[in-house]
Amino acid sequence: MKRHESNVAYRVPYADTDQMGVVYYGNYLVYFERARNALLRGLDLCYAEIEQRGFGLPVLSAHVDYKAAARYDDVLEIRGWLGDLRAIRLRVDCAVYRGDTLLAIGHTVHALVDRKTLRPVKMPADMTDIFRRALGEGDE
Amino acid sequence: MKRHESNVAYRVPYADTDQMGVVYYGNYLVYFERARNALLRGLDLCYAEIEQRGFGLPVLSAHVDYKAAARYDDVLEIRGWLGDLRAIRLRVDCAVYRGDTLLAIGHTVHALVDRKTLRPVKMPADMTDIFRRALGEGDE
Amino acid sequence: MKRHESNVAYRVPYADTDQMGVVYYGNYLVYFERARNALLRGLDLCYAEIEQRGFGLPVLSAHVDYKAAARYDDVLEIRGWLGDLRAIRLRVDCAVYRGDTLLAIGHTVHALVDRKTLRPVKMPADMTDIFRRALGEGDE
Amino acid sequence: MKRHESNVAYRVPYADTDQMGVVYYGNYLVYFERARNALLRGLDLCYAEIEQRGFGLPVLSAHVDYKAAARYDDVLEIRGWLGDLRAIRLRVDCAVYRGDTLLAIGHTVHALVDRKTLRPVKMPADMTDIFRRALGEGDE
Repeated sequence: MKRHESNVAYRVPYADTDQMGVVYYGNYLVYFERARNALLRGLDLCYAEIEQRGFGLPVLSAHVDYKAAARYDDVLEIRGWLGDLRAIRLRVDCAVYRGDTLLAIGHTVHALVDRKTLRPVKMPADMTDIFRRALGEGDE
Repeated sequence: MKRHESNVAYRVPYADTDQMGVVYYGNYLVYFERARNALLRGLDLCYAEIEQRGFGLPVLSAHVDYKAAARYDDVLEIRGWLGDLRAIRLRVDCAVYRGDTLLAIGHTVHALVDRKTLRPVKMPADMTDIFRRALGEGDE
Repeated sequence: MKRHESNVAYRVPYADTDQMGVVYYGNYLVYFERARNALLRGLDLCYAEIEQRGFGLPVLSAHVDYKAAARYDDVLEIRGWLGDLRAIRLRVDCAVYRGDTLLAIGHTVHALVDRKTLRPVKMPADMTDIFRRALGEGDE
Repeated sequence: MKRHESNVAYRVPYADTDQMGVVYYGNYLVYFERARNALLRGLDLCYAEIEQRGFGLPVLSAHVDYKAAARYDDVLEIRGWLGDLRAIRLRVDCAVYRGDTLLAIGHTVHALVDRKTLRPVKMPADMTDIFRRALGEGDE
């Protein structure tokens, strides 16, 4: 089985740039969020549904390596895929491209929590199945 | 009685600028929010408390006139005052200065609503009193 | 001739929401920018080119009327069209829809300036022609 | 000698929150920028001056560990200090507190580059001296 990957096209507005004439470094975490949203949506497990089931997926840590600058009006490709899956946490890897040029790569680590208590909870079996398929691990 | 006015000092980060080398026009609405928060806080009626009492003050409209550009590392003065008070709505006027130079001026119009239903509600008497004092209208 | 209109599809990320559970009011000015970019692009007069020709189109004023709330994961339609054209300034009207529901409507007013001096300049004839066609005004 | 540390007080506006009712994770990179600006300013080496001397300090990587949530109207303490200094790069460590509670900790790595070519350059001796003092390393 193949790893599931999301791919969002995104055009850079003036709002995202700074006076260096490039996309401000903090905006890449918003781009990563767009990749995660699309990844979950592609797995038929959109984040709104996760919240309706009483769960949350808060970010425990975030990391970005900046390789090259994105600029105003660039059409970026923002890609996301599940990088790692554990009992109560998962890692989403993200990369931002302009054509073949890698601009930034990084990841976020998330815990599955109860939305009320904000305490970590064990992932329900159906959710684990979905994420295992996203990793490209089949039941064969 | 004198009109109540808030005054927030704010230093512009790189994040707020765009590739023109000036503060992006949308950020002034965040500056106006800082002025409103400080205005309410100065009236001992902070927004968190308004929400706890079951009300909300959503924005009905916003307007900004841009006079001169703010730049990275500028220390701005963001001022706010109550411009108008009606039975179910109020207007907050805001201005952004760098020293004596007016950079932007504008306002937001808000309705008092029930937080649950989001429907307009009549302002409680104690809140009206506070806002009338903010306008500089006395009881005498 | 028909008025030229741009239409950008935009999916709301978590980043755009606030603790009211709706899109923060300041983000609509970024949505309006997306509409303007698309409008200029559709006229074969993209903003990057305007800057290369030595001009700028700074915002003189902005206005938004908020009608209904946008929420996380909504797919919005952001529309823009030229509302008015004068010798040295123009107005772009924008509206944000979710399906048939109008969420916000407003406009920005811009001056054509020399990028170096930031002083207003008369619009070149070819640019005026393009904008007149955008208004739906024909030559005969 | 003592390590130099910056400390910026910052009140959280509604704009920084998301529908989880907490500060959106991407905003911490803006908070880190405020800490870096204040750190450089405290060393009499403000970023505007670095740019005037023809240099830039672009971000090579950024990392944030999230420990607890910041909320609307919180007054945060954003602290920054030089974590590491090499010939052509440096690391700034940052932490965000609410009172005694650590909310987030992380760092950014920067290269000193020529602003024109964007290529790494060796740090001038006077700059190295300033940064060595910031590390708490003395001359004797």
